[in-house]
Amino acid sequence: MKYPSGIKSKKTVNYSNRGMSLEYDLNITNEYYLNIGKASIYKKPTPITVTKVDYKLKVAKITEGFFDTPSTTDYNGIYKGKYIDFEAKETKLEYFPLNNIHNHQIKHLVTISKLGGIGFIIVRFNKFNETYLLKIEDFISFIETEKRKSIPINYFREKGYIIKDGYNPRIDYLSIVNNFIEGESV
Amino acid sequence: MKYPSGIKSKKTVNYSNRGMSLEYDLNITNEYYLNIGKASIYKKPTPITVTKVDYKLKVAKITEGFFDTPSTTDYNGIYKGKYIDFEAKETKLEYFPLNNIHNHQIKHLVTISKLGGIGFIIVRFNKFNETYLLKIEDFISFIETEKRKSIPINYFREKGYIIKDGYNPRIDYLSIVNNFIEGESV
Repeated sequence: MKYPSGIKSKKTVNYSNRGMSLEYDLNITNEYYLNIGKASIYKKPTPITVTKVDYKLKVAKITEGFFDTPSTTDYNGIYKGKYIDFEAKETKLEYFPLNNIHNHQIKHLVTISKLGGIGFIIVRFNKFNETYLLKIEDFISFIETEKRKSIPINYFREKGYIIKDGYNPRIDYLSIVNNFIEGESV
Repeated sequence: MKYPSGIKSKKTVNYSNRGMSLEYDLNITNEYYLNIGKASIYKKPTPITVTKVDYKLKVAKITEGFFDTPSTTDYNGIYKGKYIDFEAKETKLEYFPLNNIHNHQIKHLVTISKLGGIGFIIVRFNKFNETYLLKIEDFISFIETEKRKSIPINYFREKGYIIKDGYNPRIDYLSIVNNFIEGESV
């Protein structure tokens, strides 16, 4: 099939995760979930302390500000009436360094789980093009029994749930969460 | 009782809402809920688009940025396993102007309610020192039947739930939410 110059065949679209950021994939996945009325899950804005603002312009312009440490995780929302909460990280390594996640974020996810919500982390291993969902319970069980400062990919392969790539939804992590919910009600 | 100069008697602390911002009250209330393990509810950071950052300093400094329109409401979290979502506003008027809340925030709260969450607004009428919780369903029913561009305080008095001031928690809005949850399960 011939396309006018400048318009590329849709066949060249690559649905694999290579080159795409996990954040981008999660954003379009969450948009899709929202559009089909399946779930409402958002990424929280980065917390910033604004110290100087110029109000003289048409639009207020921040002229001085600093990044804060987030108090919670990046993503939360609702699916099937359940409160969902997670942190998402990418790594180029063959393991997930524990210093990639703040202690208070881990504590936050534990609290969520105690309160009846579903808390987890999503980790993408870029080297292997594999993305996993790991429940906070399994994350805690690792850090409580191991002294290592990182979680090897094999632990994710064993205890985590692989999230497959797709077109729409891009990374269907709620299909895994759905199994947790169905499992509960059996 | 005599106090050294500069230290005021604790008796002068005023527990009424006068002069305190609703945001402040909600923050310390949510902190209290979190500390006693009752709920995990947070205010989302203000969304900001950062356009210039100075990385030359010890701490990265934002030198240009702009305020974005929030996509959702300000507060969300979990209580008794339920997903909670709300927007909080103060007004000096005797009515709540509808342009105080964005259309997409209303739409968001409706979505939350459809998905099985508990969505509402909290409005403080500073003039009367009265703070109300109004369910999104009652908010929608007003804007669908009335053509006014504001909701009079009387509608809040009739359909809403007054949130009483206290010491700890400061404004115990979850006691009202609790009644919704208990009502559901009966």
